[in-house]
Amino acid sequence: MPPQNTSLAEGAVDDDVSSHKLSLLKRRRDVMTSANILFYESSKQELLVERAEGQWMFDEEGNRYLDLINNVAHVGHCNPKVTAAVTAQMQKQYTNSRYLNSAVIEYSEHLLKHFPQELNTVLFCNSGSEATDLALRLSSYYNGKSEYICLKGGYHGHVQSALDVSPYKWKGGAVKQPEHVHAVDAPDAFRGKHKGNYAGEEYAKDVAEVISRREGKISAYIAESILSCAGQILLPPGYLKAVYKYCRENGVLTIADEVQVGFGRVGSKMWAFELQDVVPDIVTLGKPIANGFPMAAVVTRREIAEAYWKSGSQYFNTFGGNAVAAAAGLAVLKEIEESNLRQNALEVGEVFLRGFEDLKQKNDIIADVRGFGLFLGIELINSEGLPAMEEAYFVRNRLLEDRVIISVDGPDENILKLKPPMCITKENAEMVLEKMNAVFNKLK
Amino acid sequence: MPPQNTSLAEGAVDDDVSSHKLSLLKRRRDVMTSANILFYESSKQELLVERAEGQWMFDEEGNRYLDLINNVAHVGHCNPKVTAAVTAQMQKQYTNSRYLNSAVIEYSEHLLKHFPQELNTVLFCNSGSEATDLALRLSSYYNGKSEYICLKGGYHGHVQSALDVSPYKWKGGAVKQPEHVHAVDAPDAFRGKHKGNYAGEEYAKDVAEVISRREGKISAYIAESILSCAGQILLPPGYLKAVYKYCRENGVLTIADEVQVGFGRVGSKMWAFELQDVVPDIVTLGKPIANGFPMAAVVTRREIAEAYWKSGSQYFNTFGGNAVAAAAGLAVLKEIEESNLRQNALEVGEVFLRGFEDLKQKNDIIADVRGFGLFLGIELINSEGLPAMEEAYFVRNRLLEDRVIISVDGPDENILKLKPPMCITKENAEMVLEKMNAVFNKLK
Ligand SMILES: Cc1ncc(COP(=O)(O)O)c(C=O)c1O
Ligand SMILES: Cc1ncc(COP(=O)(O)O)c(C=O)c1O
Repeated sequence: MPPQNTSLAEGAVDDDVSSHKLSLLKRRRDVMTSANILFYESSKQELLVERAEGQWMFDEEGNRYLDLINNVAHVGHCNPKVTAAVTAQMQKQYTNSRYLNSAVIEYSEHLLKHFPQELNTVLFCNSGSEATDLALRLSSYYNGKSEYICLKGGYHGHVQSALDVSPYKWKGGAVKQPEHVHAVDAPDAFRGKHKGNYAGEEYAKDVAEVISRREGKISAYIAESILSCAGQILLPPGYLKAVYKYCRENGVLTIADEVQVGFGRVGSKMWAFELQDVVPDIVTLGKPIANGFPMAAVVTRREIAEAYWKSGSQYFNTFGGNAVAAAAGLAVLKEIEESNLRQNALEVGEVFLRGFEDLKQKNDIIADVRGFGLFLGIELINSEGLPAMEEAYFVRNRLLEDRVIISVDGPDENILKLKPPMCITKENAEMVLEKMNAVFNKLK
Repeated sequence: MPPQNTSLAEGAVDDDVSSHKLSLLKRRRDVMTSANILFYESSKQELLVERAEGQWMFDEEGNRYLDLINNVAHVGHCNPKVTAAVTAQMQKQYTNSRYLNSAVIEYSEHLLKHFPQELNTVLFCNSGSEATDLALRLSSYYNGKSEYICLKGGYHGHVQSALDVSPYKWKGGAVKQPEHVHAVDAPDAFRGKHKGNYAGEEYAKDVAEVISRREGKISAYIAESILSCAGQILLPPGYLKAVYKYCRENGVLTIADEVQVGFGRVGSKMWAFELQDVVPDIVTLGKPIANGFPMAAVVTRREIAEAYWKSGSQYFNTFGGNAVAAAAGLAVLKEIEESNLRQNALEVGEVFLRGFEDLKQKNDIIADVRGFGLFLGIELINSEGLPAMEEAYFVRNRLLEDRVIISVDGPDENILKLKPPMCITKENAEMVLEKMNAVFNKLK
């Protein structure tokens, strides 16, 4: 998520912006809300993306930018195999899921091969938000309970039920912490209250505490398997194992949000929850699932899925599970497999992490570097020990001048965040490291 | 919406079904939940749609079915112009709405030309459910109130906030009428409590009553502009005018759900709310908006859209407003305009309505026929004056044998419902009328 700075909503206007871009900016403001913010702070910086390909985006003048943040364009911007799959299916049929349709069945089967056996049923949605909503409702239908536990700083979507479990968004006067949701500390073993070997187990106790305080009332625990908006935080070893144990002893379901971190992004595993050696009851998938074609899914155990009937009627989602989405999703799975994108994520991720370590040695402001595969973060802390937000934006904006797109995230907006298309190369990574080195030198 | 009969979930298995279809049915059951029901009651009837084109669907044996119900395939199944627009845009770029992207701006401008001037701002979503959720939240952000009025029998989507205002779904033990929602009677001037010339104004008083009882607490009134799930009910003249007047006198916003009935389906107007000569504060769009490409939108006044900031952060929807959806949406608008589909809806709708009138003269069981353009209903009441559900399913199933697809809807499942692709012809309509005539003869 980008800065939440509302004062930037309208964007400053610079003199030397092309009149085409200026006119588009004005037209956009006329028809869309300013709450639909653009990425940068000024009309000069705003990117008008005319074309994109693989790990690259091109502006209206043909300038090429390396995209380090688009985790939706998972198998590469405008991947031709995905486009071909969508076109072919659009020429055949895309009626809704109330008709038999082999595409969605094939996709489900293929997807489930990547999951532990218990997770044997798929439900389809159109967005990560719908997946969160459905996961929470399935949980409540299943165990008849209606309170949830989530992590501080977490984000799970923009519909009301998802906002309710997204402390990241509990900010405005109109959005309050709902009474049925309990937010526990994000298990940050770098800057948080627990450090060292037992941090995972210590943080898990917060979950146990809520479960026992709200005895018999908690339906589910929801968390990302690596915390993104909360600041690219890796769960400390043993954390989910301990949390899931408490949950299971008390009839609380476990939901893993893999919307940002799933589909092999972490390299060594297909799903980030596997890094913690656990099996969730419910998994939510989105963003990269169909490379940008609107699609999302909930994967769960049969008995939980069947609990949907307790809602008194069937699950119907007009576009969810349509054959075109399934075809796009299948093309993405095949591309991950056939182009060895997980292996690539591992290898390129390692180049990045090593380079970040080097940068850290040379730059005091870099307090921590971390990540798995192509989900990476650099935490900036200034000489007074405070989160270095301004410096983070400085780095981001300077890299934009070098035509490298990176984002800033975390509750204190001091984490540089990387989650590029999975086809990025080692050479790209080395180029980025070189440019970062120069930018950090300017910061000194 | 289809029957809610949960006992039919698993479907009976017939002997003479092709082994290909049987195996698909089995495979589907293995990976998807039974709560994802199929349209018909038996594996023999279930349609395996291999291909679709215009107003036609084709099964695995090449049999051709006339589709009278797919209002999503608005400009025709697999419309080649929509496919071409999607393919072309997928080859260019489809990054998210945080980058400048001319496709979404052009689409917004084009869409807004079809709205009264006050409705000048668009927000993008991926489904009708997301649009409902956003409309309700915008309303609450805007006026700081949190209770809603909806109509009995209404349906506005499957996410929790939408289910809350969907009495149609308040059935199961796990789904209860929420305290913050007030359902008033659907203004059914045919079978309901008020009839005749003043029915509209009489029904509107129910809304006024809730507004005054919950003084200062109601944020918005939400209703479809023709009631679909509630049973193809046409709002009686003057109804929305009176309702909106009460709302406006009391700071209550008005939301028109045009997810099923919008985009020229009613023929004489682009939006069904125009039939009542009112301008809502918020309009939700979905289903036909991009002919099946997942997309939805909320159209509202600038000041309401800008109230989003009161949530404390910006509106971000990963896929919402992507360039491919915008391109598909634009192709749909152009097709409606250039192929005169509204005029076609008027003309073919009239053939249907006249034919239904004739059928009604000849068949006592037909109690009422109604509709605008290509949104039509036939209400069946048996000789004891009760809703004729079984007969409605008999007609539906017999028509399937004639390769005509029609659906049954309404709280009592006694309404035959038609909302075909907008490219259906008069000849198609005449063919349907002939077959209906034969089926109704069998019913006698
Ligand atoms: C972790 C996580 N979950 C859920 C969502 C919601 O996804 P969507 O925007 O597709 O609704 C997001 C989106 O940013 C996300 O990052
Ligand atoms: C009137 C109405 N509103 C909203 C929705 C929800 O749309 P979706 O299924 O795209 O979420 C529907 C879907 O059937 C509908 O009929």
